Parts: sequence; C-alpha cells; structure tokens
Amino acid sequence: MKRMLGLIMSFALVIILVAPSANAKTTKSNDASKDKSKSIHVQIVLFDGFDLLDALAPYEVFAAAGMYSGEAITVELVSAEGKRSVPSGMNGPSLEAEAKLDPNRSGIILVPGAAGKPAGNSEDSVPNLLRQAKETSLTALMRQAFKNKEVTVATVCGGSLLLAMQGLLKDRYAVTNAIGMAALKAFGAIPIDARVVEDDPRLVSGGGVTSGLDVAFHLVERELGPRIANAVEKLFEYERRGTVWRAEGIEPIDFAAGQTASAKGQPATSPAK
Amino acid sequence: MKRMLGLIMSFALVIILVAPSANAKTTKSNDASKDKSKSIHVQIVLFDGFDLLDALAPYEVFAAAGMYSGEAITVELVSAEGKRSVPSGMNGPSLEAEAKLDPNRSGIILVPGAAGKPAGNSEDSVPNLLRQAKETSLTALMRQAFKNKEVTVATVCGGSLLLAMQGLLKDRYAVTNAIGMAALKAFGAIPIDARVVEDDPRLVSGGGVTSGLDVAFHLVERELGPRIANAVEKLFEYERRGTVWRAEGIEPIDFAAGQTASAKGQPATSPAK
Repeated sequence: MKRMLGLIMSFALVIILVAPSANAKTTKSNDASKDKSKSIHVQIVLFDGFDLLDALAPYEVFAAAGMYSGEAITVELVSAEGKRSVPSGMNGPSLEAEAKLDPNRSGIILVPGAAGKPAGNSEDSVPNLLRQAKETSLTALMRQAFKNKEVTVATVCGGSLLLAMQGLLKDRYAVTNAIGMAALKAFGAIPIDARVVEDDPRLVSGGGVTSGLDVAFHLVERELGPRIANAVEKLFEYERRGTVWRAEGIEPIDFAAGQTASAKGQPATSPAK
Repeated sequence: MKRMLGLIMSFALVIILVAPSANAKTTKSNDASKDKSKSIHVQIVLFDGFDLLDALAPYEVFAAAGMYSGEAITVELVSAEGKRSVPSGMNGPSLEAEAKLDPNRSGIILVPGAAGKPAGNSEDSVPNLLRQAKETSLTALMRQAFKNKEVTVATVCGGSLLLAMQGLLKDRYAVTNAIGMAALKAFGAIPIDARVVEDDPRLVSGGGVTSGLDVAFHLVERELGPRIANAVEKLFEYERRGTVWRAEGIEPIDFAAGQTASAKGQPATSPAK
C-alpha cells in the first residue's frame, strides 16, 4: 500500500509539476544565461536584535527569484562584524551571517529593523536595540554604502529608523513602521505614508514588518522584470500591495492641510471644509 | 549636534510610543495574568530543507502575540531529533531547534513545508525534501500528535503534503501550495481551494508560503481573541486574507461540475452553461 502510494505520488508530482519545471528551464536557457555576468547581489544586514521576518521575508523572495532566473540574483546574510552568529530580537533564534557587509560591492544592501517591545527604553525595546546597532561599525559601513553609486539601499520597518539615526536619511523620502513615523521625521527624513517608498532608485524603504515582501518584490521586478516577480508571487501565494511611492507625476492636493498642490492648473485655494 | 539628535530622538520616541506602551501594559495587568496558568505552547517543527518563511512567519506572529498578551502564548522551534542546527532549503541559513518535538504536550504543533525546486526529483527539489523528512522519526511523532486531543496540528504550504505523505490526512479537508493540490488529493486528503482550511478545531492547514501568516493569525484569534490578533496585525502592517474554510453552514452550489449542492432549497439541476 505504501509502495502504491509512493508510485501515485511520483506520477502525480511528475505530471502536476512538469509545467512549472519546464517554465523554469526556459527562463534559464533564455534570459538568465546572458545576464549571468551581471548578476545582482543582495546583502541582508543582520545585527543583534534584528527582526527575523524583516530580514528573511526579503531573503526568501530574492532566493526564489534567483532560483527562477538561473541565479540572475544572489542573496546572502551579512553583518558589520563579518561571519558570526547573530541573535534575533525577542529571544528569537540566531542566524549565521556568512560574510562581512561589503559597502563597495555593487547591488542591493537591505537593512531590517529590530524585534522587541515597540516602546520604552528597556534592554529588549526596539528603540534601544536600534540605538545599540547605531553604535557599531555598521554606521560607518552604511555611510560608505550610501556613497557607492552602484548600491541600492533598501530598508524594512525599523531599518529606516536605524539609517535615520545614523544621519543618512536627511531630507530623503522614506517610510517605516507606523509607530516610528514621527521619530523618522525627527531624525530629518521626510516621512511618506506608503507601504514602499522609492526616494530615488538608490533608496527604497518599507513600512512595517510584512512590507518587506513588497520591498523585495519591487526590487525583483525592477532588476529582473515582471515575469520573475510574478513567478515568485505565485509560488508564495502573495499579492503585492500598494503603490510604490515616488516623487513623480502630479502631486495630490493636500486637503487636510488646506494647502494647494504644486501641480499646475490646481485651484489656488482649498475648497471649504 | 549628535547629542541634540539623541535628545530629539528620546523625546520623540517617548512621546510617540507612550500610547502603545500603555496599551501593552494594560493588557499585561488585566487579561494576561489570569491566563498565565493555561498559556498555550506552540511547537514549530524544523526538518532538513524546511522553508524559512513557512516556519518563521508564524513563529513571529506567535511571539508578538505572546509579547502583547503577557506570554499567554509561547513558541519554540523543535525537531524530531531534538536540539540541533537544522539547515533550511535552497542552501539557506540554519536555525537552532531548541528541543525535541513533544507530541504529548498540549497546544499547537505547526509543520512547515520545504524550500527548493518546486518540481522534479533532484536532491534539492521540494518533493525529494518532503520524502526525506517523511523517512525520519517525525512521522511517528506526528502520528502520536494526531492522537493527542489536546493538540492542534497546523501546516503551511508543503507541510500539508508532508502529513499527507505520512498517511495522516486521509479524508481530511486540507490545503497546500497550489502546485501541490493534486498530489494532496492523491495522498487521500480532500483538497479545498482556500487560503486557510480548518478541518476540525484540531487540524488547520494553510496554502502557499505567505498563508502561514493567516494560519497563525487565525490561531491567535481563536486562542487569545481578536484584540491580540488585531494588535499583532497592526504591528506587522498585515491584513489577514480570505475566509477560513470550514465544513459548516450552507454548501455552495457547484456550478462547474453541473451538480447540485446538498443544501436544502437549491435547484436540483444546474443552470445551462
């Protein structure tokens, strides 16, 4: 009986799965091989107390995009200190950083937030964990990364706050977890209420935890095209949410503030409330 | 200047975050303390080649629910072999299982799927990784877990297939990744096209990778109530998707099959196509 089940399984799997398999192969032999020389490398930065999902949801999107594209994109976990075991926040499991963050390597550097009590100053609070990360050599490395024109810096959740605390988001459009938006502004960034914000092609930030999926899907589409993004989306049974905000096109009228937008042809005064 | 920024930050964080902090504390001193004696324990099962997100998205939802409820729910990573480092699929990072899966412990046991090539029989294919997991002592342990009336078994993605391969889903309603639905049926389960399926309160299955979030949120609401589920949802900036399917209420007419539903008062024949 067990053997029969095994046979049925083999048949079923072969039959059912032939289609995606064939697709993957087609992709591999067409687009991916010619892109291999310029494959995109993603470094995901771990620090003590990092948030598991902030880091690993994008990690898995990039890894699957690599699988579907014949490694046109590669991803690794890094830390400012180099290869080491990095504990996640809330007494969560540790992850092994494989290498030292290299700000001179072209590609994408993604900074997650911290996991912990969302408020207060206790040792296990998010504000404290971010402050501690700011005091490490990560700050100098990220400063170098911002100077590298071949690098896109991406953030998820508290990752934006960490960069802002490092003084790297002055007058840059960005988003973070809703809880941290006022702090983001206090650190000199221009907070934008969107799930994903692209300040310019080299700075992409995401909101709360699960927005990391949307950040990664946006970057996969931008770098590898919509077919790879769609394939991973289907595999993960996820649909991206929200418009990726950019300072382009017509600016909407800000009715709440009673001010007019800068777009031409808009009325000079706001309608009466 | 740095000091001033530090001050601004402290102020901003204190002011902004006082509200959530106060809420958390209220919860802690009200509901949670009386529930502490019957806190719910979640065991998330790791096996060689497991999918990171399948395991860690629910992990983090349960961990945050614990944080917001004063540990009314606790979560740990386990393996069939006990405390060990377990490699994830697609050459991903390893996670440390903290303990051996205990099928006699009441609570929730969550089984993730595998990460790898979605088809084929290569060493790094999902079908192969699941087959290998099936050959471990995990199968006997899960059989025990199914007999324990104090245990809810939950699955994400290929986790359902793994249980089905173990012969544990005979005639049970379940869902898995869309790619594996036919295989799920071949192994004797009744596949249901929903994001989350509750066969009975003791068996809850999820579809592809990111449905693990919805599985965990459903269980958090069921066990701890909607206020905790909502708090975590807000923190993670996620909205649960889809109806949790159960074999209750009126059964919809199956127009595609040209058959009538069993619900009373429905027409005996299907409308012409």
